[in-house]
This record gives sequence, C-alpha cells and structure tokens, in this order.
Amino acid sequence: MSDKHVYRFNEGNKTMRELLGGKGANLAEMTSIGLPVPPGFTLTTEVCNYYSAHDGYPDGVEAQLEDALTALEADTGKTFGDAADPLLLSVRSGARASMPGMMDTILNLGLNDETVQGVIASTGNARFAYDCYRRFVSMYGDVVLGCKPESDDEGDVFEERLEAMKKAKGVTFDTELTADDLKELVAAFKAAVKERTGSDFPDDPRAQLWGAISAVFGSWGNDRAVAYRRMYDIPDDWVTAVNVQTMVYGNTGEESGTGVGFTRNPASGEKEFYGEFLVNAQGEDVVAGVRTPRPVSELKELWPQVYDELMEFQRTLEHEMRDMQDFEFTIERGRLFMLQTRNGKRTGLAAIRIAVDMADEGLIGHEEALMRIEPEQLNQLLRPIFDPDMKLKAVDEGRILAKGLPAGPGAATGRVVFSAQDAVAWAARGEKVLLVRDFTSPDDIRGMDVSQGILTQQGGMTSHAALVARQMGKVCIVGCGQMDVDLRGRIFKAGGSMVKEGDWISIDGFTGEVILGALETRPPEVLQVLLEKSIAQEDSESFRYYSEIMEWADKARTLGVRTNADQPDQSENAIAFGAEGIGLCRTEHMFFEGERIMSVREMILAESREAREAALAKLLPMQTGDFAGIFRAMGERPVTVRTLDPPLHEFLPHDAEDTAKTAAALGVSEDEVRTKVEDLHESNPMLGHRGCRLGIAFPEITAMQVRAILEAACLVKKEGQDVHPEIMIPLVGTKKELEHQAAIVRSVAADVFAEQGITVDYLVGTMIEIPRAALTADEIAEVAEFFSFGTNDLTQMTLGVSRDDAGKFLPLYTSEALEIWPADPFATLDQSGVGQLVEIGIERGRKTRPDLHVGICGEQGGDPETVKFCHRAGMDYVSCSPFRLPVARLAAAQAAIEESGELRLEK
Amino acid sequence: MSDKHVYRFNEGNKTMRELLGGKGANLAEMTSIGLPVPPGFTLTTEVCNYYSAHDGYPDGVEAQLEDALTALEADTGKTFGDAADPLLLSVRSGARASMPGMMDTILNLGLNDETVQGVIASTGNARFAYDCYRRFVSMYGDVVLGCKPESDDEGDVFEERLEAMKKAKGVTFDTELTADDLKELVAAFKAAVKERTGSDFPDDPRAQLWGAISAVFGSWGNDRAVAYRRMYDIPDDWVTAVNVQTMVYGNTGEESGTGVGFTRNPASGEKEFYGEFLVNAQGEDVVAGVRTPRPVSELKELWPQVYDELMEFQRTLEHEMRDMQDFEFTIERGRLFMLQTRNGKRTGLAAIRIAVDMADEGLIGHEEALMRIEPEQLNQLLRPIFDPDMKLKAVDEGRILAKGLPAGPGAATGRVVFSAQDAVAWAARGEKVLLVRDFTSPDDIRGMDVSQGILTQQGGMTSHAALVARQMGKVCIVGCGQMDVDLRGRIFKAGGSMVKEGDWISIDGFTGEVILGALETRPPEVLQVLLEKSIAQEDSESFRYYSEIMEWADKARTLGVRTNADQPDQSENAIAFGAEGIGLCRTEHMFFEGERIMSVREMILAESREAREAALAKLLPMQTGDFAGIFRAMGERPVTVRTLDPPLHEFLPHDAEDTAKTAAALGVSEDEVRTKVEDLHESNPMLGHRGCRLGIAFPEITAMQVRAILEAACLVKKEGQDVHPEIMIPLVGTKKELEHQAAIVRSVAADVFAEQGITVDYLVGTMIEIPRAALTADEIAEVAEFFSFGTNDLTQMTLGVSRDDAGKFLPLYTSEALEIWPADPFATLDQSGVGQLVEIGIERGRKTRPDLHVGICGEQGGDPETVKFCHRAGMDYVSCSPFRLPVARLAAAQAAIEESGELRLEK
Repeated sequence: MSDKHVYRFNEGNKTMRELLGGKGANLAEMTSIGLPVPPGFTLTTEVCNYYSAHDGYPDGVEAQLEDALTALEADTGKTFGDAADPLLLSVRSGARASMPGMMDTILNLGLNDETVQGVIASTGNARFAYDCYRRFVSMYGDVVLGCKPESDDEGDVFEERLEAMKKAKGVTFDTELTADDLKELVAAFKAAVKERTGSDFPDDPRAQLWGAISAVFGSWGNDRAVAYRRMYDIPDDWVTAVNVQTMVYGNTGEESGTGVGFTRNPASGEKEFYGEFLVNAQGEDVVAGVRTPRPVSELKELWPQVYDELMEFQRTLEHEMRDMQDFEFTIERGRLFMLQTRNGKRTGLAAIRIAVDMADEGLIGHEEALMRIEPEQLNQLLRPIFDPDMKLKAVDEGRILAKGLPAGPGAATGRVVFSAQDAVAWAARGEKVLLVRDFTSPDDIRGMDVSQGILTQQGGMTSHAALVARQMGKVCIVGCGQMDVDLRGRIFKAGGSMVKEGDWISIDGFTGEVILGALETRPPEVLQVLLEKSIAQEDSESFRYYSEIMEWADKARTLGVRTNADQPDQSENAIAFGAEGIGLCRTEHMFFEGERIMSVREMILAESREAREAALAKLLPMQTGDFAGIFRAMGERPVTVRTLDPPLHEFLPHDAEDTAKTAAALGVSEDEVRTKVEDLHESNPMLGHRGCRLGIAFPEITAMQVRAILEAACLVKKEGQDVHPEIMIPLVGTKKELEHQAAIVRSVAADVFAEQGITVDYLVGTMIEIPRAALTADEIAEVAEFFSFGTNDLTQMTLGVSRDDAGKFLPLYTSEALEIWPADPFATLDQSGVGQLVEIGIERGRKTRPDLHVGICGEQGGDPETVKFCHRAGMDYVSCSPFRLPVARLAAAQAAIEESGELRLEK
Repeated sequence: MSDKHVYRFNEGNKTMRELLGGKGANLAEMTSIGLPVPPGFTLTTEVCNYYSAHDGYPDGVEAQLEDALTALEADTGKTFGDAADPLLLSVRSGARASMPGMMDTILNLGLNDETVQGVIASTGNARFAYDCYRRFVSMYGDVVLGCKPESDDEGDVFEERLEAMKKAKGVTFDTELTADDLKELVAAFKAAVKERTGSDFPDDPRAQLWGAISAVFGSWGNDRAVAYRRMYDIPDDWVTAVNVQTMVYGNTGEESGTGVGFTRNPASGEKEFYGEFLVNAQGEDVVAGVRTPRPVSELKELWPQVYDELMEFQRTLEHEMRDMQDFEFTIERGRLFMLQTRNGKRTGLAAIRIAVDMADEGLIGHEEALMRIEPEQLNQLLRPIFDPDMKLKAVDEGRILAKGLPAGPGAATGRVVFSAQDAVAWAARGEKVLLVRDFTSPDDIRGMDVSQGILTQQGGMTSHAALVARQMGKVCIVGCGQMDVDLRGRIFKAGGSMVKEGDWISIDGFTGEVILGALETRPPEVLQVLLEKSIAQEDSESFRYYSEIMEWADKARTLGVRTNADQPDQSENAIAFGAEGIGLCRTEHMFFEGERIMSVREMILAESREAREAALAKLLPMQTGDFAGIFRAMGERPVTVRTLDPPLHEFLPHDAEDTAKTAAALGVSEDEVRTKVEDLHESNPMLGHRGCRLGIAFPEITAMQVRAILEAACLVKKEGQDVHPEIMIPLVGTKKELEHQAAIVRSVAADVFAEQGITVDYLVGTMIEIPRAALTADEIAEVAEFFSFGTNDLTQMTLGVSRDDAGKFLPLYTSEALEIWPADPFATLDQSGVGQLVEIGIERGRKTRPDLHVGICGEQGGDPETVKFCHRAGMDYVSCSPFRLPVARLAAAQAAIEESGELRLEK
C-alpha cells in the first residue's frame, strides 16, 4: 500500500474510484471541475483494508488526517472544536460500489456543549444549533455507539425520548419544539446513551471523528453489507473509503434549502433535467418523504440565480461525468453547494435511451454506450406490456391470483382453456385463449402456437413449455405451484378464486404474476416494425434505439449468433432478429405436424427393418419439404440439423382416445399399441434410449433423415441458392458412436449426390452434451467437423439434475437463505462446473482439429452471462431462440469490448 | 532393429518371446535344456514388423536364412531340395500370444516330383512319400496360394478332387488309397492350383520356403487375426515370428506315432501327467478327432523306453518352463521328438490348484502364483454349481429355455413364484422358490432374500435385482429378453414352453441359462467352511487353496477392501470374506424392515416439520438398533454410513392394496396417499429430488439419521468396543451442499456426545457421484474428510445412461459387431471416461487435503479391472458386496505386484 492515506478533495479525480471509493472520487472530480463542493478529504480504501486485517490504523494516518484538517480549517476559516465558530463535519462511507447496509452518514460532527454555543453565536439561531446537536447525538448514538434497536421488538431509545418530549410539550411535529426543548432533548439523549452503553457520550470532537471513521470501516463486515455483496457479486475486497466533509446547511431558515437532481429522466430516459427540493430542510428530509418536495422548476421563480447556477452545474456535471447523474445539492443562505453525485439508477428503457442519446450526442463512444445497457433490458423494447394503469388497478383490486416463474417475458390476456385441442378449437372460432396446464408435452405445440400465453403449474425455467414458448416468443409462466389445476374438472384454484374454462385471465411474463380478468396490452413497436411491418421504421422511436444498439453491437462483437428454429416461419423471424444461421433445428418437432405423426407411429410399431423402412419412406417427402423450406428461408446461412433425439415413446399415444385412433389408422389392435408403449417405457427417459442410440439401433432412421436433408439441399441449390447444411448427431459419448453415424451420413450423401447430379458442401458434427464426450473430445474431434455444446443435457448430467423435476428443490437451492446455486443453472450456465467441461471439450477438440467450429445450442445460449462465457471460452457462435437474439448480440458485443479494453458493465 | 534376423534354435531361450515369438522361444528353450527337438531356426518378429511396413524384407535376411539352412543340413545330414535324401521342413507362425486365424502351419515343405523320389528311396515307403506330398500341395495351395474357399458356397478344390478320387477307386477312407492313387492326386491338385490361380505350383523348394514365410507374415493383417487381437486386447505390434523346423514323421508306419501331453490335469489341476497318442499318425490327426487317441498310459506297454523318456522329458519341461505345459511329441521310428510346447489352457479350478501347488512345491513364488489366477476364477471356489451330469442331460433334452445376463453367479433350482409376497408365503411353508419378475424394486428385498434365485425379464448387470442379488450372494439372471413374463397370468413363456407358478426351473448364474425342471446343485466347500461352518477347515481341500491364495494376496496388496453391507448378518459374512470395514451402509434398506415402512410413510405424508419430526422420532430407536448391530458386528473396523439417498416416492405404496393399508394405518384418506404419490412423481427420478437434496429440504431427516448413528456408536463404545463411524453425504454437487449437511452432523454430534457423556471419533465425508463434484473436488475437500466414489451414479451421469433402462441398447453397444463399449460400464469402470473424473477428483481433492481418504463404493468396486484401476489411481480402498471380496483382494494384490515388478497377468 502507498504511504498516502488521506486525499484532500482537490487532490483526486473520478478515475480514482478504487482508492477513494465512488463517492470520494466523484467529490474530488466535482471539486476539480470547479463545482462548489464543501471542502473535505478522503481516507482511502487501503486504510479500510488495513483496518479489516489489523483492527487498527497504519502508521501516519493520524498525522495526515491532522494535516488535512488543518487545510480544511484554512479553507473554511473555521476551527474544529472551536467554541466560537466551530468547523462541523459530515463523515460518510464511500465504497467503490454503493452499498446499502453500510454505515452511511454522520452529520454535524464536532458539536458538544461548548461548540454548540459557537454555532448559536455564528448563526444567531439557537433552535437550529440545538436541532443539529440533537440530530448528531442520536445519529452518532445509533450507528457509532450501537444504540440502534437490533430487532423490531426493541424500542428506539432516541425516538422514545423524542416522542415523550413532544407529548410533554403537547406538540405534534418536531418543528414545533423550541430551542430549549431541543437542548433538553440533547441531555436526555446523552443520558440514554450512558444508560444503554454504560459510557458517556464523547464530547471531544477528535474522539467523535475517529469513532465515526472506525464505525464506517467496521461496518464493512456487518451482516447486511456482506449479504448485499453476495447478492450482487461484489468482491469482498472492494472495500470502502471514508469521506470527511465540511457541513453546509439547508435548514438555517427560509433562505436555505436542499434538493436532489437527475440530469435526465430516470424513468423514460428523456433528456430533461429532473429534480426536487425543499426549503429550510436537510438532505434526509427530501429522501424521508415526510414533507412533499417541490419540483425544481419552482426554484426558477424563488431563487432565479440559484436556478441558473444549478442548470449550469448539472450540465457541466453530466458532461464531465459522461453519464446521467443523480446528485444532491444544498442552498445555504442563498449559496448553492453540490454535495455528492453518482451515476443515476434508471429503468431499462431509460438505460437504452440515455446510452444511445449520449452516444449520438458524442458524449460517449458506441462501445461505451453498449456497456451502459444490461442485455436483458433490451427485452423492454421487445415484449408486449400491460397498460400500466390497468395493471395497477388489478393490484389494488386484489386480482393477483398467484405468482410463478416468469419463463417467457411479455404480457398476455386470454380465455382459459385446459387442453391443446381446446386451444386449437377455440382459436379456430376466433377466441383469444390462454392455455393452462399442469405441464406441457411436445403434443401440445399446436395448441401453444394458437394461444396468447401459456401457464403451467409444474416445470422450471427450461421445462418444455418454457423452452417452446420462448422459441415461439410466447408469454409464459411455469412452475406456478400456488395454483391447483384440475384438468378433468376444467378449473384451477388460486388466491382464493376458482377460475373456470372460458374465464379471462392475464399473465405477466416479466414478473410471473397471474391476474384475474382481461388486461389491455401494448405491443412493442420494435416487433411491429420488424415482424409485422405494421409500423414504418422511420415512425418508431423505439426502433431507432433498437437498431442503433444492434448496429453498434454487431460491429463490436466477434462471436457469431445463430438461432434454434425448426420451421421456415421461425427462421424468417430469426433473420429479422439478426440470426446468422441455424444452430439447432430439431427434426422431431416436425413429426407432430398434421397427419405425419401416424407415419411416425407406424415406423415405431414396425416389427421388421423392412416395415420400418416402408413407414420411413412416407416421412421422407414431408421432411424433405420441411428442410427445403428452412433452407430457402435461411439463404446461404449455415443450417445445423440434428438427427432424431427424443426417445420413441414420446411419439406414441398417451391416452385411450389417441390409442384407439392410432390403432384404427394403422390397422393394428389397441393391445399392440399399448404393448409397444409399455415396452418403450423408461425409468429415466432422459438417460435412456435416445439420441444417436436410436440411430445406431435403427440406422434406417438416420439414413432417411440424412436423405431428406440432402435431397432438400440439392433441390434448393438447383433453384440457384447455395446452401450449407451441417448434420449434427446428438448424444454422442464415444468416438465410435459418431463414426457409426457419420458413416451413414457419408454413404447416403454419396448416393443422393449421384442421384441428383449435384453436390452440396455439408459438415458432419456432434452435440457435446454428455460429460464423457467433453472428456474425450480429442478422440471425438477425429471424426467431428464441428461441436455444438448441448448445455441443457450437459447441465442435467454434470449436475445430476433433471430439469423437468428440478422445480421441487430449485427454488430452495437458489433462495437467498441457502444460495447453493447462484442462479438457475438451466437459465445461466454453471460456469464453475459445467463450464469446466465446456472448456475441456473445446481445448481437447481443437488440439485434434485446430479449425474445429464450436458453438452452443442449449437454452443458456441466450443468457448474457453465458454468452460472455462462450466468447471467453473461444466459441465461434452461440445459438438461441429467435427472440433472445438481440440480447445475445449485445452480450457478445460486451464480451468483446470487455476483453479488449478497460470498459466493463457496471454492477 | 537388430542386424540379426534369423536365430537357430540353439541360439535362443524362453526369455526371448518378444523377438522369437512364443513358439520360437519355447523351441529354443527346449533345445537349450537338452530335449530332443528337431533342429530349426526362427525368423524374428522384427522381420515381420519390417515386412508389414515395407511389404518386403530387410537386407541380410536371405543370407542369414541360407546360413541357417546350411547349418540345418549339417545337423541332419540331409540337403534341402536334394533328390536323394531331401531335407523337409515345417513352417509355422509363432506370435508372442497364440492367435487363431493366422496362417498356422505348412508341413513337408521341400517336396517336388524330384525330391519325393529321395523320400521314397530313404524310407522305402512310396505311399508315405506321396501322402506327404499330396498333403503338402493342398496345405500350401490353401494357405499360401489362396485356393481355400472363401465362403461355404464355394467348394474346396482339393477336397473335391480327393472325394472324386475315392469315389473313382471305390474306397471310403483316405488310408485306402494306394501310392499310385496319391501320386495321381498330387497331379490333380497341382492342376487345380493352376486352374484356380493361373500359375503353376512352385516346384523349387526355396521358392516354396519364401512363399510360406511371406504367407505367415502377410496373414498377420488378415481379418480374423485382427478381430482376434481386438477381442483379446492384444496390441497390433505384438507381431509374429516364423519357425522353420526339420520335419519328423509319426506316420512312417507302426513303429512311429504322435501325441499331445499336459504336464498336469488341465480340468482339475491335479498333479498327474495327462496325454494321448496315436500310432502311425501326424499331429493333426490327434487334434482333428477323426481317430480316437489312446491314453498315454498305454505307451508304457507299447514302447516302455519311449514312455520313460516322455515322463522324464515332461518333468524337465515343466520344471524349466515353471508352468503347466501343453506339448506335442512325435515318435519317428522309435525315436522321441518334442515338437513344440506352450503354457496349457486350463479351467479356473485348475488354474487355482496349479498355481497354489506350484508355489507350495517351490517351483514359483507366491506373487507369481497370484499372477497365474484370473481373479474371477476364484468364483469357481465360491459358488454353488449344478451337478455336471444333470446339466448335460438337460441340454440333451432341450430343456434350456432362454439365456439372459448372468448377474449373480451360481446355480439355483426352485419353484416359480411371480411376486415377492408369494415368495415369502411359499418359503414360509417350506418351499424352495425361484422369484421370476419383469424387474424388481426395493420392496422385493424380503422376497428375494427367501428365494433360491432371481430371474428377471428386464434390467442390466447392475439393475436393482442384480445389485441386491450379488450383495445377498443370490444366483441371479437379469435382462432375459427371450422370455415373456405375464405377472397377472402367473406364467412366463420361453423357448416354446409355458412355465406356470409352482413349476420347477433351474438357473445357471455362470452362463445365464434358464433350464426347465429341477437340477441338483452342489454347495461350494469354501462357503460351507467359512459361513456355515458345516465343514471343518482341515477337511476341505478347496478351502486350503482358497485360504492360501487369500493369505498371499493380503500380504501383497496395499489397497484396502471394504464391503457394502446394510445388515449385521451381511457384515458378519463380509468379515468372513475379509472385509476390513464397511464402505457403504445404505440406511434406507432398513426402512423396509417389518412395520417401520409405515413410520417412513407417515414422515413422508407429514405436512409440517413438527409432524415430520414426530414420525422420525418413531424411526430413531429402530435405526439406532440397526446401527448398533452393525457396529458390534464390525468391531473396530470403520463403518461408512450413507444418509438417506433415494427419492421419497420409492417408499410410498405402488398399488391399490398397499395404498388402502397405508391410509388405514396412518389414519388418512386414500386420496391423500394417492395425491402424495402423484406430487412426488418424477420424470427422471435418477436426477431428481434425492440424496443430500432431501437432507437439505428436510434437515430433520439428516438430523435423525445422524443421531441414530452416533447414539448407536456411543452405546457400543460404552459396551467396551471402540467404533469408527464415517458419515457419508450422498449426491453432493457443490461444496455448499456438503457444508449445509456437515453443519447438521457436527451440531447433532455435539448434542449426542453431551447427552451421552462420551465422545466417538467420527468423520464426515461425501460420495463423489456427480460429475460436478469430481470437477470441483478441490472445493468439496475443504469440507469433506473422505471421498467415496459412487461409480454407479457417476457412470450413469458421465455416460448419460440410466442403468435401469440401458438393457434396451447395452447388448448392441457391447456386441462384437459394434463394440461401442468394450464392456458393460456398470460392471467394469469406463476408465477412459468415468475414470478421468475419478482421477481428477482424487488429484484435486488431495491438492486441498493431502491426507484425504478415498475409496470406491460403486458396483464396479468388485471388478478386477476396476480394482486395479483404483490401485493405480491412488485410492485407499475399494468397497464391494461381501461375495466379491475374495476377487477384489486378489485383484488388489495383482495390481500391487504389476506395479512393483515385471510380473503381469497373462491374457
């Protein structure tokens, strides 16, 4: 550590956050740019570190503090502890990141029975002096001497005495107490301290000052501060500094005041100064909300010169700080002081707008603008939202029935149906429906597609319903255990209400709230421009912000973005959102379309290879058509198609009606169908007969799918458009499995190209989704031309957690109380566990094949933290659902910017 | 490579296997110890390597071969290619390991139309000479010139001509053909060669010799040889040598003969010479089985001097070779020649007996004896077996119904029952029952316990049934897909028969055969000595062999052996088998005993913590009693107890009857029971709410179990016996989980010790069974005092394979055709995949905690290859089911011996 422990405000600047804390650096910066900051000095974070480790101070601190104090006395013309005109101080903590729970502020430090007389003498206002004094004693007593009640049961010793005094004097408000009352209160407060702590209240100003400083440094380790750092991933060694500053007073009378200001609107982001103030008040009065502050515009009338100064100061401030500022000011007897400033908190919408505007104004660069936006905030531009007034009304009326996991953001309203079939039927006659289920299965896709939103009692953030919903851009709430769905009775119960089929409900996919009744929604403009094209680009302000961010992000990022899409229309949406290819096309999602499911079932029920091939032959033209559609939609972009993955039982009927229908359609007995269902039953289908294990047991299935992909590719290429199919084999755990399947691919490809008289460039690769595959990636890369990390399954297996069942303990595991997992590992990649396997897989794969193309296609591919991890791990691309693409593009840009320079997303 | 390519037999010895091949080295050894070996020389394996790489010979081979040939001519007084008294040769391959499918033997090389006259002249036997000649031409034509039919459809050109000749001459046997007939046949054979290959048969003896040598070297790469090497893990660079040897003839007439001998009985291992011979025959006649050979004892009468020589030679041979030898001999006109020798193949029983006897005789050391026994062969001493005659009869009568996976070795006979309850009921009235199921669940334990054996249609080698059966020492066949079980109908169909409840069947757990009818079994003596104590140690020869091996193994091994046992009686058995502690005690297995399952269900159905604790309080004394029993049985040995692991739904009723019983017993409605069953249902229970996730959701369960363990420990310690409990937390994936559970353990321990007024040394550790745990073992070891690798679950997750469902594709995956997995990964640890995680886990764990105690408790812990891996990986112990302990002890000894020296288990 350096020998310099104390910095006067005019010795520092805003770049010294690490040493001086955020507040100290900003005070120094304001001082250095000439703003009227009450003078003071900062004890550095290094002192705090030393104090934490040694429970004492490094050599030289005392002397340096005395020097700084002497300088302060010279600046102000006052003397600390002087009985005639005492210097009074504030002592504030100032961590690198602001942090609730830490000892925050001691005001009026330096007062005692002698110096209070000096204040009375210099201000001529005894009431003011004693008011300061009693505030100081109680504040100091609470936070430095530990008189603050530790639980709600305990009374506040100062509050009790204040109330007793008001009662005794027959008054209602503090302000009605006289100077003598307050003087009496000071004595009572000090007696309370003595009673509580067994020691006298310290009258020596220097003892007060050191007590306050030590209290700040000590509070770094208190429970609330520690908990906060955990919650927001703030490193424990981002310690605090202490700022000691000359007091100025907004409460000396009607010629004084105090206020707060935002350099731009923190809610909308609009470029307009936004502030409030109170006459004859201290800063805490504005925040406390006891008195209603006045809009700063009124200052113009009241004190025009102060107003003009304030306007000029805030412009200077924002310009110098290069971000929207939230600052405090005080007017002491007509003189304006800037007390502290910090980057202002803002809504997502405001964050976007401010960042883009500032970049457009030339205040910051494009990259810096990108680093000002949390990627998830982009969703605020991309999702329908409820009309805010109607939502508020619903809350007031107690119509919030339950809260589940917000799996698909947005706002949806519709009439409740309890089955996918009903959803299709009701929608067909023009109803807006909302599908409510215990859980959903792949059968339900068409029903989900026609619904406004999906609400399920079970499942986690990456359950089938959630996954499909996000891919479709549907609003979705899952795992809503507070409701009780009775599918047969066609009702659900929640929040004391019973909701029947046909009733209107609304679901808020941002918050997970289930709301009784219909709420109006507003579609986001960006979607109306991009997808519906119902608004022209130039008419939408949101679109301008969106497209500027995306343009800058695309320029900054090096990581590619692809999408998970199974249908031509999904592919088109994805391209609108910036997809550079398809990273995962699940062929089996096509199996449920129309009547083809019967051909699939015929194939499964086949008892011989010949019968199986006959059924597959019926599927071939349908799959070929699907793939051709996707190739046409995607143009020359690469399209990664995964061969059949789910266990075959997923395609068989689940109820009596469907069993009967299937038996009739295929000309077999219902018993045969039921027997096959039983035969294929698995205890743990997740770890069962699926993925390439199917293609190995039934090579003809792989052969048919490869033929469909490559015939479609030839067809589209003949139409004049080049195509780049990538054939991906799922669930590979050993090189031999991939060899087996790759041999089929190569052989079918040779046949198809010979038949078609044209060849197509294609790749054969594999999912890395089994831990063993990552561990033996060097061997697998001998065969694989690309890897795609299937982090859904990889997470399930590496953590030993079924995502369909995790709902039972996931809330407990991610709870603040336990925090066993920092986040849902199916939403954000578990970097320290699963991430190790990803890194091992990439490193070993590239050792064998240096040009190995590597991506991720798990659900986490759209999560910002995961995208950044993928960038750092050296992947070529991430693939996510179409509606997550903007988030992924921004996160990828941030990852590149973070890697290349000093910029970092602020927490 | 060295410059010396050709070694005369008197230049080598048995240590030169690598250079001269097994056969060449042994021929050299026999020559060097003075046995009468027909002289010859060996082309080295280095020549083969060169030939494989260059398709030609290194410089100097020809000259060296000519030198060796000249020496041979000098030794024999004959000349190669001489028309008067020609030297005739055999050419044989001689790989380091013997290998079917390789070109094996060419005899009588050097014959042509000229030299055959010399043979006639020197032997005076034209028929003999032409018989040699026609055999040579056909043999050479087949294997060197490629005339051998490539498929069964193709006719053998030589066989066809021979048959035509016999038909033409009107004779039945080859021996009836005259010298002229055979001469004619030689011409016909040569014409066939010309017809088939387009080239003349080579008459030049040197061309013949080089052709034969090249054919041997070339055959190294043929399909059958390659497949064989794959199958037996023989490295591809263990190439072959070629042996060229002077011909001697056992077929010159009634004064000649040929035979084979074993220096000890290869079936029983008894120390008695065992051999057979034929008069006037070639070696191949003995092997071909066309003529029935005579026992060698008859030689004593026939040619007493030859017999005495043979006895002396075989004693010398075994003494010098230090292992049981399988050798060939030929008597040419009364003179005995030793042709070749090798270590004799033998049964498991013989392997054990020979190894122990030879060590007792001082012929080999104890460690060498241990390396002569495949650990699995020990089972032949430890399992009941079927009476061999009755088994043979059943085969003859076609009573083998089906074949499944041999999961629990041994032989069992009983009457078929189809439910665990029936098994208990029938057994209670004195019936011997055999439990037949589709699969088994933990409910079935009592039924399994009273059954002679268990036969299931589904499941793999590590399915529940297999696992429990092995632990109980039960005979068990699983995954018997060839049978069709109808539980409701109480029948099963297999092999065209229908077997009803009460019918007698027998199952062979060594082979997986299901046999109709009762077969008598023989209990192994070792068990009768060790467990039943119905035979005195000194009266059992088997036991002597067993105990000597175990004594030597225990002396050699450094790896500890523990057992997986849940009950006091299992613990006692395990100690008899050498257990040094319990590596895994599954507390939940006790939950099914008697009426306690109802207390377990009461706990699960409880809706509040209080109600749960009340139910747990009922279980506490029962669990305490169980643990006390185990501690008493195990003495001072460490006992590792795992806290509750399976998902709670496993303890709930599965059928209507049990549901009703449970509802009645607990005073709740059947609906409540059903609802709880539905609530707890999981899609993938393997990856569900189980292991420490239960203990974290319901800390009171962990607390109760820890209390039971430690109260029992205090109780037993007060009885005067020290105890060493190790408390093991299952399914830990992150350090925080273990911290949470360890805190409960420590807190309960403090309470119990305070209450009991005594303390007990105990450890807290964890299973490493989730990939993430292995990857973050460094963090987990900050809390864990020991690791136990749960390789059942670790294999399931690392490979993404559910062991309960793997039966669907495991046979395909381990089939010779695909060989995706070299072995069932649940039986033998997947060293290249799962093994990596084990090594990572140990390395990282010990980095944090150098003295970390590490073991394995998965089913693979009793597999020899896995035991050796565990030794190499640096584990402290393996834990396996009691009946696998002898195998584990021997394998551990072999691992230590392999590590320390030159000895290696021969493949």
